[in-house]
Amino acid sequence: MQKKAVILFSGGLDSTTCLAVAKDMGFKTYALSFDYGQKHSFELEAANINAKDFGVEEHKVVNVGLNILGGSALTDKSIEVPDFSSNKEIPNTYVPARNTIFLSIALGYAETIGSSDIFIGINAVDYSGYPDCRPEFLDAFEVLANLATKKGVEGSKVKLHAPLLRLDKAEIIKLGVSLGVDYGKTTSCYRLDASGRACGLCDSCHYRRLGFLGAGIEDPTNYK
Amino acid sequence: MQKKAVILFSGGLDSTTCLAVAKDMGFKTYALSFDYGQKHSFELEAANINAKDFGVEEHKVVNVGLNILGGSALTDKSIEVPDFSSNKEIPNTYVPARNTIFLSIALGYAETIGSSDIFIGINAVDYSGYPDCRPEFLDAFEVLANLATKKGVEGSKVKLHAPLLRLDKAEIIKLGVSLGVDYGKTTSCYRLDASGRACGLCDSCHYRRLGFLGAGIEDPTNYK
Repeated sequence: MQKKAVILFSGGLDSTTCLAVAKDMGFKTYALSFDYGQKHSFELEAANINAKDFGVEEHKVVNVGLNILGGSALTDKSIEVPDFSSNKEIPNTYVPARNTIFLSIALGYAETIGSSDIFIGINAVDYSGYPDCRPEFLDAFEVLANLATKKGVEGSKVKLHAPLLRLDKAEIIKLGVSLGVDYGKTTSCYRLDASGRACGLCDSCHYRRLGFLGAGIEDPTNYK
Repeated sequence: MQKKAVILFSGGLDSTTCLAVAKDMGFKTYALSFDYGQKHSFELEAANINAKDFGVEEHKVVNVGLNILGGSALTDKSIEVPDFSSNKEIPNTYVPARNTIFLSIALGYAETIGSSDIFIGINAVDYSGYPDCRPEFLDAFEVLANLATKKGVEGSKVKLHAPLLRLDKAEIIKLGVSLGVDYGKTTSCYRLDASGRACGLCDSCHYRRLGFLGAGIEDPTNYK
């Protein structure tokens, strides 16, 4: 029987590549997106389009009102998203505990549909230094997942897949292109304008642009 | 300076006792409730009343759309809440990964307000056998919390407090009464009727009733 996998799915470059990898590994795919009070909704539209393109079994969008907690430039209207900076500080686009929250809900979804496999497009090479993108974070979550659920109690193992963890952005893009990802349909920018055009200057645009340059693949992003 | 603590707060018997304990330990208290598609909203009203009574600094209610995932009698209208049963199976009132999800959001809230202390009213004695109420689950979450956040990266320790973990329901009730909890204002029932009266027969009512009997304290619950 074809195994089911839950894919944390923002519709961005990394998570769409991750979905393509899960499909390629033979999983039946269940995409999970979040409406968490992020400032723009183009991300969810992109998720919807890419989920359809890859023929997922189901695409759920879960509402999580993280914006009422504030604390991040991605969810709090009073905090500006900065341009990329090469200093080593964790930038203000960090959403406190976001990956922990998203993985927890993915765990609940996986248990509901009878899946033991969760994919997350975390990347520890070309990333913004967020603490919850590190391998040791993932390992700790897997331990937790196996104590937190019925499956764990019954002895079945929950497995986290992070196929992009050790790849740089150029490698991710080359992998995705080889698996049929159309990156023109993915968004990464933290501050898209009202027409959905990328700023080209934030952290997320920075790594994306470098990635296409490094891969020697034309960047299909709609920059303003 | 008075330290801040986040309290996972449903307004039920356990979490209200937990809030009273945190106050008694000298913390400035920040109560966190969830609107997660549970079938009735009396729980949130009770949370609101008890949070005010205990003079919390802030009471946040975060929307989490777990009902669209289904899988539990507490969130899925097509699944009936059963009467208490003494068999050892995990009952259908189990919400997949609920405590993991709630603790993750508490972690994000704690980081936002600059707190390192999270209280949860988990109880491993008189409980329904949910996997995410066990001590080993809590320990694993604490490890994760310290890898998932800026605080963890910066070397400050996040601490989970579960002051009710080893108490039976009667001991919890005696503790709460000694700290000024008015249990007449708390709700526990999984299937309150339209007037907010408890069924007296579900798992949650079962343990609550036994608790008052064991404590030799009159049960103020409004049963139908």
